[in-house]
Amino acid sequence: MSPNQPGQMPKMPIPGVKNLIAVGSGKGGVGKTTVSVNLAVGLASLGYKSGLMDADVYGPNVPLMMGINRTPMAFGERIQPIEQFGVKLMSMGFLNPGDKPLVWRGPMLHSVIQQFLRGVDWGELDYLVIDLPPGTGDVQLSLIQTAPITGAIIVTTPSDVSLEDARKAIFMFHQVKVPILGMVENMSFLMCPHCKERIDVFSYGGGRRTAEQMDVHFLAELPLDPAVRIGGDSGRPIVLRKDEGEPFLALAKNVAARAEEAAKEEGPKIEISD
Amino acid sequence: MSPNQPGQMPKMPIPGVKNLIAVGSGKGGVGKTTVSVNLAVGLASLGYKSGLMDADVYGPNVPLMMGINRTPMAFGERIQPIEQFGVKLMSMGFLNPGDKPLVWRGPMLHSVIQQFLRGVDWGELDYLVIDLPPGTGDVQLSLIQTAPITGAIIVTTPSDVSLEDARKAIFMFHQVKVPILGMVENMSFLMCPHCKERIDVFSYGGGRRTAEQMDVHFLAELPLDPAVRIGGDSGRPIVLRKDEGEPFLALAKNVAARAEEAAKEEGPKIEISD
Repeated sequence: MSPNQPGQMPKMPIPGVKNLIAVGSGKGGVGKTTVSVNLAVGLASLGYKSGLMDADVYGPNVPLMMGINRTPMAFGERIQPIEQFGVKLMSMGFLNPGDKPLVWRGPMLHSVIQQFLRGVDWGELDYLVIDLPPGTGDVQLSLIQTAPITGAIIVTTPSDVSLEDARKAIFMFHQVKVPILGMVENMSFLMCPHCKERIDVFSYGGGRRTAEQMDVHFLAELPLDPAVRIGGDSGRPIVLRKDEGEPFLALAKNVAARAEEAAKEEGPKIEISD
Repeated sequence: MSPNQPGQMPKMPIPGVKNLIAVGSGKGGVGKTTVSVNLAVGLASLGYKSGLMDADVYGPNVPLMMGINRTPMAFGERIQPIEQFGVKLMSMGFLNPGDKPLVWRGPMLHSVIQQFLRGVDWGELDYLVIDLPPGTGDVQLSLIQTAPITGAIIVTTPSDVSLEDARKAIFMFHQVKVPILGMVENMSFLMCPHCKERIDVFSYGGGRRTAEQMDVHFLAELPLDPAVRIGGDSGRPIVLRKDEGEPFLALAKNVAARAEEAAKEEGPKIEISD
Protein backbone atom coordinates (compact mmCIF):
# COMPACT_ATOMS: atom_id res chain seq x y z
CA MET A 1 0.00 0.00 0.00
CA SER A 2 1.16 3.46 -0.76
CA PRO A 3 1.83 5.46 2.37
CA ASN A 4 0.12 8.39 0.67
CA GLN A 5 -3.37 6.96 0.24
CA PRO A 6 -5.98 9.48 1.37
CA GLY A 7 -6.98 7.73 4.59
CA GLN A 8 -3.40 7.60 5.78
CA MET A 9 -2.25 11.14 5.14
CA PRO A 10 -0.21 12.28 8.10
CA LYS A 11 -1.97 14.90 10.19
CA MET A 12 -0.10 16.83 12.80
CA PRO A 13 -0.84 15.36 16.23
CA ILE A 14 -1.62 17.68 19.13
CA PRO A 15 1.32 17.14 21.49
CA GLY A 16 0.18 15.46 24.72
CA VAL A 17 -3.35 14.68 23.49
CA LYS A 18 -3.98 10.95 23.08
CA ASN A 19 -7.50 10.88 21.62
CA LEU A 20 -9.47 13.47 19.70
CA ILE A 21 -13.20 12.78 19.76
CA ALA A 22 -15.34 14.91 17.44
CA VAL A 23 -19.01 15.25 18.34
CA GLY A 24 -21.11 16.17 15.33
CA SER A 25 -24.67 16.18 14.09
CA GLY A 26 -26.34 16.83 10.81
CA LYS A 27 -28.95 19.05 12.38
CA GLY A 28 -28.60 21.64 15.11
CA GLY A 29 -30.51 21.56 18.35
CA VAL A 30 -30.37 17.81 18.75
CA GLY A 31 -28.25 18.02 21.89
CA LYS A 32 -24.76 17.89 20.42
CA THR A 33 -23.34 20.33 22.96
CA THR A 34 -25.22 18.64 25.79
CA VAL A 35 -23.65 15.33 24.77
CA SER A 36 -20.18 16.93 24.37
CA VAL A 37 -20.27 18.61 27.77
CA ASN A 38 -21.57 15.58 29.61
CA LEU A 39 -19.16 13.29 27.77
CA ALA A 40 -16.14 15.43 28.69
CA VAL A 41 -17.23 15.77 32.34
CA GLY A 42 -18.16 12.07 32.42
CA LEU A 43 -14.71 11.05 31.15
CA ALA A 44 -13.15 13.23 33.86
CA SER A 45 -15.39 11.57 36.49
CA LEU A 46 -14.13 8.20 35.26
CA GLY A 47 -10.56 9.32 35.97
CA TYR A 48 -9.45 10.25 32.47
CA LYS A 49 -7.66 13.51 31.76
CA SER A 50 -10.28 15.30 29.74
CA GLY A 51 -10.59 18.45 27.66
CA LEU A 52 -13.39 20.07 25.70
CA MET A 53 -12.92 22.34 22.72
CA ASP A 54 -16.02 24.24 21.65
CA ALA A 55 -15.66 24.52 17.87
CA ASP A 56 -19.21 25.78 17.41
CA VAL A 57 -18.02 29.31 16.79
CA TYR A 58 -21.47 30.48 15.64
CA GLY A 59 -23.28 29.46 18.80
CA PRO A 60 -20.72 28.64 21.47
CA ASN A 61 -22.93 27.35 24.28
CA VAL A 62 -20.25 25.51 26.24
CA PRO A 63 -19.50 28.42 28.64
CA LEU A 64 -23.15 28.68 29.68
CA MET A 65 -23.54 24.92 30.03
CA MET A 66 -20.34 24.67 32.11
CA GLY A 67 -21.20 27.72 34.23
CA ILE A 68 -18.22 29.84 33.22
CA ASN A 69 -18.16 33.60 32.79
CA ARG A 70 -14.48 34.39 32.92
CA THR A 71 -11.84 34.84 30.22
CA PRO A 72 -8.82 32.60 29.74
CA MET A 73 -5.30 33.93 30.37
CA ALA A 74 -2.57 33.92 27.78
CA PHE A 75 1.13 33.43 28.58
CA GLY A 76 3.04 34.78 25.63
CA GLU A 77 1.32 33.30 22.60
CA ARG A 78 -0.17 30.35 24.46
CA ILE A 79 -3.75 30.43 25.74
CA GLN A 80 -4.43 28.71 29.06
CA PRO A 81 -7.63 26.68 28.99
CA ILE A 82 -10.16 27.23 31.77
CA GLU A 83 -10.70 24.23 34.05
CA GLN A 84 -14.13 23.30 35.36
CA PHE A 85 -15.41 20.01 36.83
CA GLY A 86 -11.98 18.54 36.03
CA VAL A 87 -12.22 19.40 32.32
CA LYS A 88 -9.93 21.77 30.41
CA LEU A 89 -12.05 24.07 28.26
CA MET A 90 -11.70 26.42 25.35
CA SER A 91 -14.53 28.23 23.60
CA MET A 92 -15.05 31.26 21.41
CA GLY A 93 -17.67 32.16 24.01
CA PHE A 94 -14.82 32.95 26.43
CA LEU A 95 -13.34 35.47 24.03
CA ASN A 96 -16.61 37.02 22.85
CA PRO A 97 -18.90 36.93 25.87
CA GLY A 98 -22.30 38.57 25.72
CA ASP A 99 -24.83 38.83 22.97
CA LYS A 100 -22.85 40.28 20.08
CA PRO A 101 -22.70 37.81 17.21
CA LEU A 102 -19.51 37.05 15.34
CA VAL A 103 -20.14 36.78 11.64
CA TRP A 104 -17.42 34.50 10.33
CA ARG A 105 -16.21 34.02 6.82
CA GLY A 106 -14.55 30.72 5.88
CA PRO A 107 -10.84 31.62 6.12
CA MET A 108 -11.28 33.27 9.54
CA LEU A 109 -12.92 30.10 10.77
CA HIS A 110 -9.97 28.03 9.66
CA SER A 111 -7.57 30.19 11.59
CA VAL A 112 -9.55 30.27 14.82
CA ILE A 113 -9.89 26.48 14.75
CA GLN A 114 -6.14 26.09 14.34
CA GLN A 115 -5.60 28.48 17.25
CA PHE A 116 -7.90 26.41 19.41
CA LEU A 117 -6.19 23.17 18.46
CA ARG A 118 -2.59 24.27 18.61
CA GLY A 119 -2.42 27.61 20.42
CA VAL A 120 -4.02 26.33 23.63
CA ASP A 121 -1.98 24.68 26.40
CA TRP A 122 -4.00 21.49 26.56
CA GLY A 123 -1.22 19.69 28.44
CA GLU A 124 -1.54 15.91 28.86
CA LEU A 125 -5.01 14.68 27.92
CA ASP A 126 -6.47 11.24 27.45
CA TYR A 127 -9.43 12.73 25.60
CA LEU A 128 -10.03 16.03 23.90
CA VAL A 129 -13.71 16.23 23.01
CA ILE A 130 -14.47 18.61 20.14
CA ASP A 131 -17.96 20.04 19.92
CA LEU A 132 -18.43 20.67 16.18
CA PRO A 133 -20.95 23.07 14.73
CA PRO A 134 -23.94 21.24 13.26
CA GLY A 135 -23.91 20.32 9.61
CA THR A 136 -21.19 19.72 7.09
CA GLY A 137 -19.45 23.04 6.54
CA ASP A 138 -16.16 24.86 6.71
CA VAL A 139 -15.27 24.21 10.35
CA GLN A 140 -15.77 20.48 10.02
CA LEU A 141 -13.56 20.38 6.92
CA SER A 142 -10.82 22.49 8.51
CA LEU A 143 -10.68 20.26 11.56
CA ILE A 144 -10.87 16.98 9.75
CA GLN A 145 -8.20 17.95 7.25
CA THR A 146 -5.68 19.05 9.83
CA ALA A 147 -6.22 17.09 13.05
CA PRO A 148 -5.83 13.34 13.61
CA ILE A 149 -9.35 12.65 14.86
CA THR A 150 -9.60 9.30 16.67
CA GLY A 151 -13.27 9.05 15.90
CA ALA A 152 -16.55 10.89 15.57
CA ILE A 153 -19.81 10.60 17.44
CA ILE A 154 -23.04 11.51 15.65
CA VAL A 155 -25.89 12.88 17.73
CA THR A 156 -29.47 12.74 16.46
CA THR A 157 -33.01 12.78 17.74
CA PRO A 158 -35.40 10.04 16.63
CA SER A 159 -37.31 12.37 14.26
CA ASP A 160 -37.07 11.63 10.54
CA VAL A 161 -35.87 15.14 9.84
CA SER A 162 -32.96 14.79 12.24
CA LEU A 163 -32.13 11.30 10.98
CA GLU A 164 -32.05 12.55 7.38
CA ASP A 165 -29.36 15.05 8.39
CA ALA A 166 -27.53 12.51 10.57
CA ARG A 167 -27.09 10.25 7.55
CA LYS A 168 -25.50 13.15 5.70
CA ALA A 169 -23.07 13.68 8.58
CA ILE A 170 -22.15 9.98 8.56
CA PHE A 171 -21.46 10.14 4.83
CA MET A 172 -19.28 13.19 5.35
CA PHE A 173 -17.11 11.43 7.94
CA HIS A 174 -16.91 8.36 5.71
CA GLN A 175 -15.82 10.50 2.77
CA VAL A 176 -13.00 12.08 4.74
CA LYS A 177 -12.02 8.73 6.32
CA VAL A 178 -12.74 9.65 9.92
CA PRO A 179 -13.83 6.54 11.85
CA ILE A 180 -17.28 6.80 13.42
CA LEU A 181 -17.27 5.64 17.04
CA GLY A 182 -21.01 5.54 17.07
CA MET A 183 -24.37 7.21 17.11
CA VAL A 184 -26.31 8.65 20.03
CA GLU A 185 -30.08 9.02 20.01
CA ASN A 186 -30.89 12.03 22.18
CA MET A 187 -34.37 13.08 23.33
CA SER A 188 -35.40 9.45 22.87
CA PHE A 189 -38.41 9.66 25.13
CA LEU A 190 -39.86 11.69 27.96
CA MET A 191 -41.24 10.37 31.21
CA CYS A 192 -44.18 12.58 32.22
CA PRO A 193 -43.24 14.06 35.61
CA HIS A 194 -46.92 14.00 36.59
CA CYS A 195 -48.21 10.56 35.59
CA LYS A 196 -44.85 8.82 34.92
CA GLU A 197 -46.14 7.61 31.56
CA ARG A 198 -43.76 7.60 28.67
CA ILE A 199 -44.13 10.13 25.80
CA ASP A 200 -42.26 9.67 22.50
CA VAL A 201 -42.14 13.37 21.67
CA PHE A 202 -39.77 13.10 18.72
CA SER A 203 -40.68 9.51 17.85
CA TYR A 204 -38.45 6.69 19.10
CA GLY A 205 -35.90 4.14 17.94
CA GLY A 206 -34.89 5.78 14.66
CA GLY A 207 -31.35 6.34 15.92
CA ARG A 208 -30.72 2.66 16.57
CA ARG A 209 -32.40 1.67 13.30
CA THR A 210 -30.37 4.17 11.27
CA ALA A 211 -27.15 3.08 13.00
CA GLU A 212 -27.86 -0.54 12.04
CA GLN A 213 -28.72 0.39 8.45
CA MET A 214 -25.52 2.36 8.08
CA ASP A 215 -23.36 -0.17 9.92
CA VAL A 216 -22.48 2.27 12.67
CA HIS A 217 -22.19 1.35 16.35
CA PHE A 218 -25.16 2.49 18.47
CA LEU A 219 -23.83 4.12 21.62
CA ALA A 220 -26.76 5.26 23.71
CA GLU A 221 -30.31 6.45 23.89
CA LEU A 222 -30.64 9.44 26.16
CA PRO A 223 -33.93 10.57 27.65
CA LEU A 224 -35.59 13.94 27.01
CA ASP A 225 -35.42 14.85 30.68
CA PRO A 226 -36.12 18.44 31.76
CA ALA A 227 -33.28 17.89 34.28
CA VAL A 228 -30.84 17.66 31.35
CA ARG A 229 -31.90 21.09 30.09
CA ILE A 230 -31.83 22.52 33.62
CA GLY A 231 -28.30 21.13 34.00
CA GLY A 232 -27.31 22.95 30.82
CA ASP A 233 -29.05 26.21 31.64
CA SER A 234 -27.65 26.28 35.17
CA GLY A 235 -24.07 25.40 34.22
CA ARG A 236 -23.96 22.10 36.12
CA PRO A 237 -23.99 19.17 33.66
CA ILE A 238 -26.41 16.40 34.55
CA VAL A 239 -23.69 13.72 34.46
CA LEU A 240 -22.61 15.07 37.86
CA ARG A 241 -25.95 14.03 39.35
CA LYS A 242 -26.10 10.56 40.82
CA ASP A 243 -29.19 8.93 39.31
CA GLU A 244 -30.24 11.19 36.47
CA GLY A 245 -26.63 11.36 35.28
CA GLU A 246 -26.32 7.59 34.86
CA PRO A 247 -27.12 7.35 31.10
CA PHE A 248 -24.48 9.99 30.39
CA LEU A 249 -21.84 8.27 32.51
CA ALA A 250 -22.61 5.03 30.69
CA LEU A 251 -22.12 6.88 27.41
CA ALA A 252 -18.69 8.11 28.54
CA LYS A 253 -17.64 4.54 29.41
CA ASN A 254 -18.92 3.32 26.08
CA VAL A 255 -17.06 6.01 24.15
CA ALA A 256 -13.81 5.28 25.98
CA ALA A 257 -14.15 1.60 25.11
CA ARG A 258 -14.91 2.39 21.47
CA ALA A 259 -11.99 4.81 21.21
CA GLU A 260 -9.62 2.11 22.46
CA GLU A 261 -10.97 -0.27 19.82
CA ALA A 262 -10.63 2.38 17.11
CA ALA A 263 -7.01 3.00 18.15
CA LYS A 264 -6.30 -0.74 17.86
CA GLU A 265 -8.04 -1.04 14.49
CA GLU A 266 -5.88 1.75 13.16
CA GLY A 267 -2.84 -0.46 13.71
CA PRO A 268 0.57 0.56 15.02
CA LYS A 269 1.19 4.28 15.17
CA ILE A 270 4.39 6.25 15.26
CA GLU A 271 4.88 7.27 18.88
CA ILE A 272 7.15 10.09 19.85
CA SER A 273 8.73 9.23 23.21
CA ASP A 274 9.26 12.05 25.68
CA MET B 1 -29.47 62.62 5.20
CA SER B 2 -27.16 61.06 2.71
CA PRO B 3 -28.89 58.58 0.44
CA ASN B 4 -25.89 56.31 0.89
CA GLN B 5 -26.14 55.63 4.62
CA PRO B 6 -25.77 51.89 5.29
CA GLY B 7 -29.41 51.17 6.18
CA GLN B 8 -30.69 52.75 2.98
CA MET B 9 -28.49 51.12 0.39
CA PRO B 10 -30.61 50.08 -2.55
CA LYS B 11 -31.05 46.34 -2.83
CA MET B 12 -32.35 44.75 -5.99
CA PRO B 13 -36.00 43.77 -5.54
CA ILE B 14 -37.18 40.35 -6.71
CA PRO B 15 -39.61 41.19 -9.52
CA GLY B 16 -43.18 40.25 -8.57
CA VAL B 17 -42.39 39.49 -4.92
CA LYS B 18 -43.99 41.96 -2.51
CA ASN B 19 -42.64 40.83 0.85
CA LEU B 20 -39.54 38.85 1.77
CA ILE B 21 -39.81 37.30 5.22
CA ALA B 22 -36.61 35.77 6.63
CA VAL B 23 -37.01 33.15 9.34
CA GLY B 24 -33.89 32.81 11.43
CA SER B 25 -32.67 31.49 14.74
CA GLY B 26 -29.47 31.70 16.68
CA LYS B 27 -29.50 28.01 17.43
CA GLY B 28 -30.43 25.07 15.23
CA GLY B 29 -33.15 22.60 16.08
CA VAL B 30 -35.47 25.13 17.62
CA GLY B 31 -38.11 24.62 14.94
CA LYS B 32 -37.10 27.27 12.42
CA THR B 33 -38.02 25.11 9.43
CA THR B 34 -41.23 23.95 11.09
CA VAL B 35 -42.19 27.60 11.59
CA SER B 36 -41.17 28.51 8.01
CA VAL B 37 -43.14 25.67 6.44
CA ASN B 38 -46.26 26.25 8.50
CA LEU B 39 -46.02 30.00 8.01
CA ALA B 40 -45.80 29.68 4.22
CA VAL B 41 -48.65 27.14 4.07
CA GLY B 42 -50.64 29.20 6.58
CA LEU B 43 -50.27 32.35 4.47
CA ALA B 44 -51.49 30.39 1.43
CA SER B 45 -54.49 29.12 3.44
CA LEU B 46 -55.30 32.75 4.28
CA GLY B 47 -55.48 33.52 0.57
CA TYR B 48 -52.06 35.12 0.07
CA LYS B 49 -49.81 34.12 -2.80
CA SER B 50 -47.02 32.40 -0.93
CA GLY B 51 -43.59 31.00 -1.65
CA LEU B 52 -40.94 29.28 0.45
CA MET B 53 -37.23 29.35 -0.28
CA ASP B 54 -35.17 26.87 1.72
CA ALA B 55 -31.84 28.65 2.23
CA ASP B 56 -30.62 26.10 4.76
CA VAL B 57 -28.27 24.54 2.24
CA TYR B 58 -26.53 22.41 4.90
CA GLY B 59 -29.64 20.68 6.11
CA PRO B 60 -32.46 21.37 3.66
CA ASN B 61 -35.41 19.77 5.43
CA VAL B 62 -38.17 21.57 3.55
CA PRO B 63 -38.69 18.79 0.93
CA LEU B 64 -39.26 16.17 3.64
CA MET B 65 -41.54 18.43 5.66
CA MET B 66 -43.57 19.33 2.54
CA GLY B 67 -43.72 15.76 1.30
CA ILE B 68 -41.87 16.31 -1.97
CA ASN B 69 -39.52 13.92 -3.69
CA ARG B 70 -39.37 15.24 -7.22
CA THR B 71 -37.00 17.60 -8.98
CA PRO B 72 -37.91 21.03 -10.35
CA MET B 73 -37.88 21.66 -14.08
CA ALA B 74 -35.85 24.34 -15.76
CA PHE B 75 -36.98 26.29 -18.85
CA GLY B 76 -33.88 27.80 -20.37
CA GLU B 77 -32.00 29.30 -17.47
CA ARG B 78 -35.06 29.71 -15.26
CA ILE B 79 -35.91 27.15 -12.61
CA GLN B 80 -39.61 26.41 -12.05
CA PRO B 81 -40.47 26.16 -8.37
CA ILE B 82 -42.41 23.11 -7.19
CA GLU B 83 -45.91 23.87 -5.89
CA GLN B 84 -47.35 22.07 -2.87
CA PHE B 85 -50.30 23.02 -0.62
CA GLY B 86 -50.56 26.26 -2.61
CA VAL B 87 -46.95 27.26 -1.90
CA LYS B 88 -44.18 27.71 -4.47
CA LEU B 89 -41.05 25.99 -3.22
CA MET B 90 -37.35 25.89 -3.89
CA SER B 91 -34.77 23.94 -1.91
CA MET B 92 -31.28 22.56 -2.35
CA GLY B 93 -32.87 19.32 -1.20
CA PHE B 94 -34.63 19.11 -4.60
CA LEU B 95 -31.32 19.28 -6.44
CA ASN B 96 -29.36 17.01 -4.14
CA PRO B 97 -31.84 14.42 -2.89
CA GLY B 98 -30.66 11.54 -0.76
CA ASP B 99 -28.08 11.32 1.93
CA LYS B 100 -24.96 12.71 0.29
CA PRO B 101 -23.86 15.88 2.06
CA LEU B 102 -22.84 18.99 0.18
CA VAL B 103 -19.82 20.60 1.78
CA TRP B 104 -20.07 24.25 0.90
CA ARG B 105 -17.42 26.91 0.98
CA GLY B 106 -18.46 30.55 1.38
CA PRO B 107 -18.37 31.78 -2.24
CA MET B 108 -20.35 28.77 -3.51
CA LEU B 109 -23.00 29.55 -0.93
CA HIS B 110 -23.29 33.09 -2.18
CA SER B 111 -23.90 31.95 -5.72
CA VAL B 112 -26.50 29.31 -4.88
CA ILE B 113 -28.43 31.82 -2.77
CA GLN B 114 -28.47 34.28 -5.67
CA GLN B 115 -29.69 31.52 -7.99
CA PHE B 116 -32.51 30.73 -5.60
CA LEU B 117 -33.51 34.37 -5.27
CA ARG B 118 -33.22 35.45 -8.88
CA GLY B 119 -32.97 32.36 -11.05
CA VAL B 120 -36.30 30.86 -9.91
CA ASP B 121 -39.62 31.81 -11.54
CA TRP B 122 -41.35 32.91 -8.37
CA GLY B 123 -44.03 34.77 -10.33
CA GLU B 124 -46.36 37.06 -8.38
CA LEU B 125 -46.06 36.50 -4.65
CA ASP B 126 -47.42 38.38 -1.65
CA TYR B 127 -44.94 36.62 0.60
CA LEU B 128 -41.72 34.77 -0.02
CA VAL B 129 -40.68 33.09 3.23
CA ILE B 130 -36.96 32.36 3.45
CA ASP B 131 -35.85 29.60 5.78
CA LEU B 132 -32.34 30.68 6.80
CA PRO B 133 -29.72 28.32 8.17
CA PRO B 134 -29.32 28.70 11.94
CA GLY B 135 -26.73 31.11 13.27
CA THR B 136 -25.04 34.16 11.88
CA GLY B 137 -22.90 33.01 8.99
CA ASP B 138 -22.20 33.41 5.30
CA VAL B 139 -25.67 32.62 3.95
CA GLN B 140 -27.35 35.13 6.22
CA LEU B 141 -24.91 37.83 5.16
CA SER B 142 -25.25 37.07 1.46
CA LEU B 143 -29.00 37.27 1.64
CA ILE B 144 -29.21 40.33 3.79
CA GLN B 145 -26.71 42.25 1.71
CA THR B 146 -28.42 41.61 -1.59
CA ALA B 147 -32.16 41.18 -1.02
CA PRO B 148 -34.64 43.75 0.29
CA ILE B 149 -35.90 41.77 3.27
CA THR B 150 -39.19 43.14 4.61
CA GLY B 151 -38.51 41.73 8.03
CA ALA B 152 -37.10 38.84 10.01
CA ILE B 153 -38.69 36.41 12.43
CA ILE B 154 -36.54 34.91 15.18
CA VAL B 155 -37.43 31.45 16.43
CA THR B 156 -36.26 30.24 19.83
CA THR B 157 -37.18 27.71 22.48
CA PRO B 158 -37.58 28.90 26.07
CA SER B 159 -34.26 27.36 27.18
CA ASP B 160 -31.51 29.77 28.27
CA VAL B 161 -29.10 28.28 25.77
CA SER B 162 -31.46 28.94 22.89
CA LEU B 163 -32.29 32.43 24.15
CA GLU B 164 -28.59 33.29 24.38
CA ASP B 165 -28.23 32.49 20.68
CA ALA B 166 -31.52 34.22 19.78
CA ARG B 167 -30.18 37.47 21.24
CA LYS B 168 -27.14 37.14 18.98
CA ALA B 169 -29.41 36.72 15.96
CA ILE B 170 -31.41 39.81 16.94
CA PHE B 171 -28.20 41.81 17.21
CA MET B 172 -27.12 40.59 13.80
CA PHE B 173 -30.34 41.76 12.14
CA HIS B 174 -30.10 45.08 13.99
CA GLN B 175 -26.53 45.54 12.78
CA VAL B 176 -27.48 45.01 9.17
CA LYS B 177 -30.66 47.14 9.54
CA VAL B 178 -33.16 44.42 8.79
CA PRO B 179 -36.40 45.10 10.70
CA ILE B 180 -37.44 42.33 13.08
CA LEU B 181 -41.11 41.45 12.72
CA GLY B 182 -41.03 39.52 15.94
CA MET B 183 -39.99 36.53 17.97
CA VAL B 184 -41.61 33.10 18.21
CA GLU B 185 -41.22 30.83 21.22
CA ASN B 186 -41.42 27.28 19.94
CA MET B 187 -41.66 24.14 22.10
CA SER B 188 -43.16 26.36 24.79
CA PHE B 189 -44.84 23.55 26.67
CA LEU B 190 -46.07 20.00 26.21
CA MET B 191 -49.47 18.65 27.18
CA CYS B 192 -49.00 15.07 28.37
CA PRO B 193 -51.12 12.93 26.02
CA HIS B 194 -51.80 10.54 28.92
CA CYS B 195 -52.73 12.74 31.89
CA LYS B 196 -53.25 16.07 30.04
CA GLU B 197 -50.99 17.82 32.55
CA ARG B 198 -48.67 20.48 31.26
CA ILE B 199 -44.89 19.85 31.10
CA ASP B 200 -42.42 22.72 30.58
CA VAL B 201 -39.75 20.58 28.92
CA PHE B 202 -37.51 23.42 27.81
CA SER B 203 -38.65 25.88 30.51
CA TYR B 204 -41.32 28.46 29.62
CA GLY B 205 -41.81 32.17 28.96
CA GLY B 206 -38.21 33.10 28.17
CA GLY B 207 -39.13 33.99 24.61
CA ARG B 208 -41.67 36.60 25.63
CA ARG B 209 -39.35 37.94 28.35
CA THR B 210 -36.40 38.23 25.95
CA ALA B 211 -38.59 39.90 23.32
CA GLU B 212 -39.67 42.52 25.86
CA GLN B 213 -36.10 43.11 27.05
CA MET B 214 -34.90 43.59 23.51
CA ASP B 215 -37.90 45.64 22.41
CA VAL B 216 -38.95 43.10 19.82
CA HIS B 217 -42.57 42.16 19.10
CA PHE B 218 -43.62 38.78 20.53
CA LEU B 219 -45.48 36.85 17.84
CA ALA B 220 -46.50 33.51 19.28
CA GLU B 221 -45.86 30.70 21.66
CA LEU B 222 -46.17 27.35 19.95
CA PRO B 223 -46.68 24.10 21.82
CA LEU B 224 -44.28 21.15 21.79
CA ASP B 225 -46.88 18.86 20.29
CA PRO B 226 -45.87 15.46 18.91
CA ALA B 227 -48.42 16.18 16.14
CA VAL B 228 -46.18 19.02 14.92
CA ARG B 229 -43.25 16.64 14.52
CA ILE B 230 -45.47 14.02 12.89
CA GLY B 231 -46.69 16.70 10.48
CA GLY B 232 -43.07 17.44 9.58
CA ASP B 233 -41.95 13.83 9.30
CA SER B 234 -44.97 12.87 7.19
CA GLY B 235 -44.81 15.84 4.83
CA ARG B 236 -48.17 17.32 5.81
CA PRO B 237 -47.66 20.51 7.84
CA ILE B 238 -49.77 20.75 10.96
CA VAL B 239 -51.24 24.13 9.96
CA LEU B 240 -53.45 22.15 7.55
CA ARG B 241 -55.11 20.38 10.50
CA LYS B 242 -58.20 22.06 11.87
CA ASP B 243 -57.64 22.29 15.62
CA GLU B 244 -54.00 21.48 16.18
CA GLY B 245 -53.06 23.85 13.36
CA GLU B 246 -54.73 26.86 14.98
CA PRO B 247 -51.64 28.37 16.71
CA PHE B 248 -49.75 28.26 13.41
CA LEU B 249 -52.58 29.88 11.46
CA ALA B 250 -52.74 32.61 14.10
CA LEU B 251 -48.99 33.10 13.64
CA ALA B 252 -49.46 33.54 9.88
CA LYS B 253 -52.14 36.19 10.46
CA ASN B 254 -49.91 37.94 12.96
CA VAL B 255 -46.93 37.94 10.60
CA ALA B 256 -49.02 39.33 7.73
CA ALA B 257 -50.21 42.15 9.97
CA ARG B 258 -46.69 42.90 11.16
CA ALA B 259 -45.31 42.88 7.62
CA GLU B 260 -47.92 45.45 6.58
CA GLU B 261 -46.89 47.65 9.50
CA ALA B 262 -43.22 47.25 8.62
CA ALA B 263 -43.92 48.24 5.02
CA LYS B 264 -45.71 51.38 6.26
CA GLU B 265 -42.92 52.28 8.69
CA GLU B 266 -40.46 52.09 5.84
CA GLY B 267 -42.25 54.99 4.15
CA PRO B 268 -42.94 55.45 0.43
CA LYS B 269 -41.14 53.07 -1.88
CA ILE B 270 -40.31 53.28 -5.53
CA GLU B 271 -42.80 51.07 -7.31
CA ILE B 272 -42.24 49.80 -10.80
CA SER B 273 -45.58 49.60 -12.58
CA ASP B 274 -46.17 46.76 -15.01
